[in-house]
Amino acid sequence: MASSEGNKLWGGRFVGNTDPIMEKFNASIAYDQRMWEADIKGSKAYVKALQKAGLVTQNEMEQILTGLDKVFDEWSKGEFKIKPGDEDIHTANERRLKEFIGDPAGKLHTGRSRNDQVATDMRLWLRDTINTLKELALQLISTMVERAAVEIEILCPGYTHMQRAQPIRWSHWILSHAVALSRDVERLEDIRKHVNVMPLGSGAIAGNPFDIDRELLRQELNFDSISINSMDATGQRDFVAEFLFWASMCLTHLSKMAEDLILYSTKEFSFITLTDAYSTGSSLMPQKKNADSLELIRSKAGRVFGREDKEAMFDTYDTVHAVLQVATGVISTLMVNQPAMERALSPDMLATDLAYLLVRKGMPFREAHSCAGKAVYIAESKNIHLSQITVEDLQTVSPLFDKDVSSVWDYNRSVEQYSAPGGTARSSVTAQIEHFRTWLQAQKQKP
Amino acid sequence: MASSEGNKLWGGRFVGNTDPIMEKFNASIAYDQRMWEADIKGSKAYVKALQKAGLVTQNEMEQILTGLDKVFDEWSKGEFKIKPGDEDIHTANERRLKEFIGDPAGKLHTGRSRNDQVATDMRLWLRDTINTLKELALQLISTMVERAAVEIEILCPGYTHMQRAQPIRWSHWILSHAVALSRDVERLEDIRKHVNVMPLGSGAIAGNPFDIDRELLRQELNFDSISINSMDATGQRDFVAEFLFWASMCLTHLSKMAEDLILYSTKEFSFITLTDAYSTGSSLMPQKKNADSLELIRSKAGRVFGREDKEAMFDTYDTVHAVLQVATGVISTLMVNQPAMERALSPDMLATDLAYLLVRKGMPFREAHSCAGKAVYIAESKNIHLSQITVEDLQTVSPLFDKDVSSVWDYNRSVEQYSAPGGTARSSVTAQIEHFRTWLQAQKQKP
Amino acid sequence: MASSEGNKLWGGRFVGNTDPIMEKFNASIAYDQRMWEADIKGSKAYVKALQKAGLVTQNEMEQILTGLDKVFDEWSKGEFKIKPGDEDIHTANERRLKEFIGDPAGKLHTGRSRNDQVATDMRLWLRDTINTLKELALQLISTMVERAAVEIEILCPGYTHMQRAQPIRWSHWILSHAVALSRDVERLEDIRKHVNVMPLGSGAIAGNPFDIDRELLRQELNFDSISINSMDATGQRDFVAEFLFWASMCLTHLSKMAEDLILYSTKEFSFITLTDAYSTGSSLMPQKKNADSLELIRSKAGRVFGREDKEAMFDTYDTVHAVLQVATGVISTLMVNQPAMERALSPDMLATDLAYLLVRKGMPFREAHSCAGKAVYIAESKNIHLSQITVEDLQTVSPLFDKDVSSVWDYNRSVEQYSAPGGTARSSVTAQIEHFRTWLQAQKQKP
Amino acid sequence: MASSEGNKLWGGRFVGNTDPIMEKFNASIAYDQRMWEADIKGSKAYVKALQKAGLVTQNEMEQILTGLDKVFDEWSKGEFKIKPGDEDIHTANERRLKEFIGDPAGKLHTGRSRNDQVATDMRLWLRDTINTLKELALQLISTMVERAAVEIEILCPGYTHMQRAQPIRWSHWILSHAVALSRDVERLEDIRKHVNVMPLGSGAIAGNPFDIDRELLRQELNFDSISINSMDATGQRDFVAEFLFWASMCLTHLSKMAEDLILYSTKEFSFITLTDAYSTGSSLMPQKKNADSLELIRSKAGRVFGREDKEAMFDTYDTVHAVLQVATGVISTLMVNQPAMERALSPDMLATDLAYLLVRKGMPFREAHSCAGKAVYIAESKNIHLSQITVEDLQTVSPLFDKDVSSVWDYNRSVEQYSAPGGTARSSVTAQIEHFRTWLQAQKQKP
Repeated sequence: MASSEGNKLWGGRFVGNTDPIMEKFNASIAYDQRMWEADIKGSKAYVKALQKAGLVTQNEMEQILTGLDKVFDEWSKGEFKIKPGDEDIHTANERRLKEFIGDPAGKLHTGRSRNDQVATDMRLWLRDTINTLKELALQLISTMVERAAVEIEILCPGYTHMQRAQPIRWSHWILSHAVALSRDVERLEDIRKHVNVMPLGSGAIAGNPFDIDRELLRQELNFDSISINSMDATGQRDFVAEFLFWASMCLTHLSKMAEDLILYSTKEFSFITLTDAYSTGSSLMPQKKNADSLELIRSKAGRVFGREDKEAMFDTYDTVHAVLQVATGVISTLMVNQPAMERALSPDMLATDLAYLLVRKGMPFREAHSCAGKAVYIAESKNIHLSQITVEDLQTVSPLFDKDVSSVWDYNRSVEQYSAPGGTARSSVTAQIEHFRTWLQAQKQKP
Repeated sequence: MASSEGNKLWGGRFVGNTDPIMEKFNASIAYDQRMWEADIKGSKAYVKALQKAGLVTQNEMEQILTGLDKVFDEWSKGEFKIKPGDEDIHTANERRLKEFIGDPAGKLHTGRSRNDQVATDMRLWLRDTINTLKELALQLISTMVERAAVEIEILCPGYTHMQRAQPIRWSHWILSHAVALSRDVERLEDIRKHVNVMPLGSGAIAGNPFDIDRELLRQELNFDSISINSMDATGQRDFVAEFLFWASMCLTHLSKMAEDLILYSTKEFSFITLTDAYSTGSSLMPQKKNADSLELIRSKAGRVFGREDKEAMFDTYDTVHAVLQVATGVISTLMVNQPAMERALSPDMLATDLAYLLVRKGMPFREAHSCAGKAVYIAESKNIHLSQITVEDLQTVSPLFDKDVSSVWDYNRSVEQYSAPGGTARSSVTAQIEHFRTWLQAQKQKP
Repeated sequence: MASSEGNKLWGGRFVGNTDPIMEKFNASIAYDQRMWEADIKGSKAYVKALQKAGLVTQNEMEQILTGLDKVFDEWSKGEFKIKPGDEDIHTANERRLKEFIGDPAGKLHTGRSRNDQVATDMRLWLRDTINTLKELALQLISTMVERAAVEIEILCPGYTHMQRAQPIRWSHWILSHAVALSRDVERLEDIRKHVNVMPLGSGAIAGNPFDIDRELLRQELNFDSISINSMDATGQRDFVAEFLFWASMCLTHLSKMAEDLILYSTKEFSFITLTDAYSTGSSLMPQKKNADSLELIRSKAGRVFGREDKEAMFDTYDTVHAVLQVATGVISTLMVNQPAMERALSPDMLATDLAYLLVRKGMPFREAHSCAGKAVYIAESKNIHLSQITVEDLQTVSPLFDKDVSSVWDYNRSVEQYSAPGGTARSSVTAQIEHFRTWLQAQKQKP
Repeated sequence: MASSEGNKLWGGRFVGNTDPIMEKFNASIAYDQRMWEADIKGSKAYVKALQKAGLVTQNEMEQILTGLDKVFDEWSKGEFKIKPGDEDIHTANERRLKEFIGDPAGKLHTGRSRNDQVATDMRLWLRDTINTLKELALQLISTMVERAAVEIEILCPGYTHMQRAQPIRWSHWILSHAVALSRDVERLEDIRKHVNVMPLGSGAIAGNPFDIDRELLRQELNFDSISINSMDATGQRDFVAEFLFWASMCLTHLSKMAEDLILYSTKEFSFITLTDAYSTGSSLMPQKKNADSLELIRSKAGRVFGREDKEAMFDTYDTVHAVLQVATGVISTLMVNQPAMERALSPDMLATDLAYLLVRKGMPFREAHSCAGKAVYIAESKNIHLSQITVEDLQTVSPLFDKDVSSVWDYNRSVEQYSAPGGTARSSVTAQIEHFRTWLQAQKQKP
């Protein structure tokens, strides 16, 4: 099969054939064709640098640029045909270029290695897709913030360890997840900087021997800076590992939010209902309406790990891309069942407030906590609500208890105490909303 | 066992005993005692804020501060005694404080939750230890850069896929690893910013109800900023995940360096020799001298993963702390065998240069690559070195070959071609060294 | 520090000192001392083989055996003192032996390598601890099965995707988790076989040169078989990887069970209550009673991974050992709230039965499913229970509906349908219980 | 888009549309269509059980069986057309069946859930593919064993920690890897048993309500046994996790073998050469011949982890399937450079033998090890081979040294000492080869 051999870049010396399984093993065109645009962009810049270095003539450069534009056109129109010998996008594009312009195509690779190309293309591709992900994340955060603004009146139980802890605003819960996502957006910007460093001009390992103008390349490709050492530049994939880790953090945040929402959508909680667009049924049980959108979001957290390579990069991007959109859909359409949320508030959730009552009368908190604990125990023993214990009974626990204890049993009052920055009081939640509106505005104005 | 119960923070209502296995399961004092200093620091700041909020008197505050200083002293002198009921460092310190000053100790926890404390202490601890790791990393980089400066004359094979690729400077190899570590240092600074955000004042979940002055707390504890949402603040451990990921990246870099050095220290390569201080022997084979230091460095890359908790944070810190020091020791003491390195340079490594000779005469690179490949094949067939092929034989491959081909067989000349930024030419390596010297200077001057 | 050097096994040729960090890095005595008994056992067998091979005299053998018994005694009584030079348990035991009996101790290591010892000791240790874990797992399964037998009358919702699916017996839920654990027990037996293969007599890599009687060793140490290839025998740790994977499966099963129970113990579900012995409180909120035992069980699933070494083996063993016991405690003491479970059964969970009614009248299931779905939709639109739809309304969906539809609204009847093997009918659940009782009996009678 | 809705199994009650991203998220047809044959097989068995239970008539059964055969035919001929609404293979096959036979198709799903089908199909598919993998693994082992038999004369260095340790037979190295793979084959058989348990007849969660004959199903589908509990049966994927772990072990073994071979194929070692069919070149460096086949094998070890689902199962299978074949190709075609291997044997590798000489004269091994270590040190100081030290010099180390020391410097003699089972002596290696031949014979005769 000399002909199939002939398509391969290392050409001349191989006399044996390649095991076809091995060949398939090695080929990456099935997924790396997504970088077709980055690859052409990189080659266009490189040929300009070759011309400046005197390695191609003005005329050859123009032929190559025109040829690359034709290749670009074919891809744009979905007309590019991948052939059997095209093991990756770089080979494929150069093969096609040669078909268009003939011999000068063979000059394009001068002083450049495949690793040079792969590293450059991956960085170009990722740099641009990061922008897309950032926009989707901002859209989700924006949805959450505006929903929090509208529903600021709704109270619900705040949970720790899945047990009712303290009454909070529903908006406080929403914003707790928005904060996590806003950190993700900020981290994504840091990563973009690490991605946007140009390796091109590093050759195989020793560097570029033709005194190529790397600053020209940088400008053409709009990179922030130039790699420092050629061995490191072609070999390292730190930026992919960073991106995968970022995705894993972001998906974990969405997963945690989905986990809460799955719980809230159970019949037993009944806090929220998903629209049909984000639910699925069962092939067996006609009444089932599963929160499949949430389950999918939740499950994706475990998906992205491990391999620092192109395939992982694409797979991860697709996953985050879809999950962010589904999450936005879910958050913007779910229906809140305010009565159910409020029914779930129970007086025992105010036990902390009972302790604080004693604290405000001068009792050390540890002692007050113990007294409130005893009150909870009395209520449980008598099988009544904590709010139903008589003042007499409370006084057996501490003489500091008085009629004013009745003021404790008010969820709104409870929530309004938490007015320190970050708390669940209306003023504090409003401040958080304002913070995010400003932050979103600033994010959108960034380049 | 009411007495052991009495030590626990949730005190009053529990009537049953705790399964002792469960108790052991829950206890973290064995490892979180490392945060004793951070815990005392946090409490000292908090009591000041309590006093400002009117929840403790000036006198009580002073008692608590003095008591905390005594606890501090005991830890400093290694005299603090952990008792059976001390399930974590927070309980232990408060228990001891109470022994010193009695009832006012019970006021310290007012409005504060355990999660408040844990999150604050972890951030304080990590913030400070990050500085230590940064210094160790800089020391290693500095050692590498100065070694690269001294040994700039030494040439050796550069490898890709473990096969000889192109001649490079030994310093170029060293610097390729220094670059990776310098990125780690820069990432560590980003992480420090994410760590240095104050959660204190977030209570359990709803916030702090006593209008505590969080800005005062921030200043006292020297945090950069204040957390935005109380639910998020007490629940998230993103900063630990980021630190673990950072460590895993950094250890991977050291692991790759160690992998190369292990190879270079085999009898078959014989490029380097470790000093005895970094080697170990075999209990069975008297001649063995294993590169155990390198194997340990290499193996640690896989160690740090998974759990986003205190235990993982401490374990990871200890690992990186040790590995950085051992790596510095190894790099500063290993002996380079320059003759062995140079013996390993072989003419076939100049095949690229042979192709470039044709490129410079106008042949497209793809064709030149093929011609050089044929020359390699001829040399292999005749079982001679590539440099030993006659001009006549070369001319059967391409008429462009001429006597001037002899100029190719010079490793120094080859290396000096790579003068574009990042390459292995002397000028380019020197520029890298200067870059790092400046960078190191700047790093050391940072606060 | 020649003296500290003197303690090391490779003795003679080292002239430099060892970096103390490196030394600490290398030392494993902190954890591998747990194998002290296995190590002594292995050495006692080995010296017998040495005597048979003529490498130690009868007298020397007796000295060594007596000396090893003394070392054994010290460990048994907790009197063994680890000294600075004892880098691992093997060095420590031999060092102590030498202190007891002098020079003949130096003959014990003849033809044996450290890897020989490590591999043998790990297998001996793991083989025995596997038995302990098996017993604990059987105890847990037994508790589950007997609980299932006692509570067979209790019905509760079966959930898929956390949504109510079909009514089942509570015992059916319990047994679904018992099945998973019974598979774990069976896998543990497979692993025990893979562990119980003797590497001793493999030397460093090439084998044992003194024609040692490996069959004698095998019998002395009660191994099932002898390793086939010396290189593989000393180098592989497959059995540890298998054990770690086993633990990860088993912990995942317990984790899933804990996840369900956490849900069932929320106020919103209120199906179960943990005893105080398996709950913890909050340092801030007096009413909180967290299912910490369950959270710990759940969280441990992620813990065990990665490193195929001694440290991971010990850590994993300890984790599973504790988790199995806590799970047994939780399962045997939790209180079931039967009324709450039954209140959670709702007519819509019988929608499948409604479809089956039509199926039994000859309608294809797909069509019946669709009809039942329409009935659910009508009930939802009218905001009534599915069981409250009139026959007239049902007939608009399908004329096959008749008065006999009223027979559908009976949870007991529904459950009793599932009488095929593995189903939730009483007969079927009873058969499962009997299956497990027989299986448990058989397991306990195994050697 | 009611029409697209109409294709979905849960049909009747949904009034909203589904978010298309969500739909794509949920669809698995892209990969689970590989189970088309298993799915049809399962349905054919199920319809027979339905007929026996009286839920379909003899005639309906025959229609369904004939229809399913037509679907089978289309898949066999590559003519099956997947339509937009076909979200998975189960939906697709039933949709096509309905097109062929109309209404009776709607009876096929009676009492069966999607999970029932998925679990059954996955087990059928995996059971059969396991056989394929076993055959490929046996072929590889067989190749290794026969190569070991042919090349039993060749000696080479055995390495530990990449440092030369002791001379061994090249065949001993080969067999050390064959042993690991033979354990993999045995484990695969264990897994096959765990896979071959039938879940069909478990319904959604509560079981099958039509008293379906599960024993009939088992026989039709040739399962070994029937699942015990319906909840467990439909929900668990332990068998997939076991398969993924198995693959990860097997790939790790191949990875370790590849790692050694990569090292042996470096210019510096030059022990082996790959044929061109298993090498690739460089697009830049004409002389490069990379051991890409080995690098791919090595890299795959990290690939398979994590997700216990269909996608992971297929991906893992494909990977192992390819890797085993490439490994067989590599092993059967690589060329061994015997002179290079023998040149790499050096007298210091006999230092252990030098110590054994003293041991045989009665010196305790620890002392002998120290004496041999001193001899190594002398040789290094004098810069001579260990074999070149004079008897006089040796006597300064120990008076036991004599002229007979010259007998030590014979690699063949050294190797022949290791005649205990598992060692590298010819007799012992031959026994290993015979062991494997018998074992392979037995394996091939298994059903």
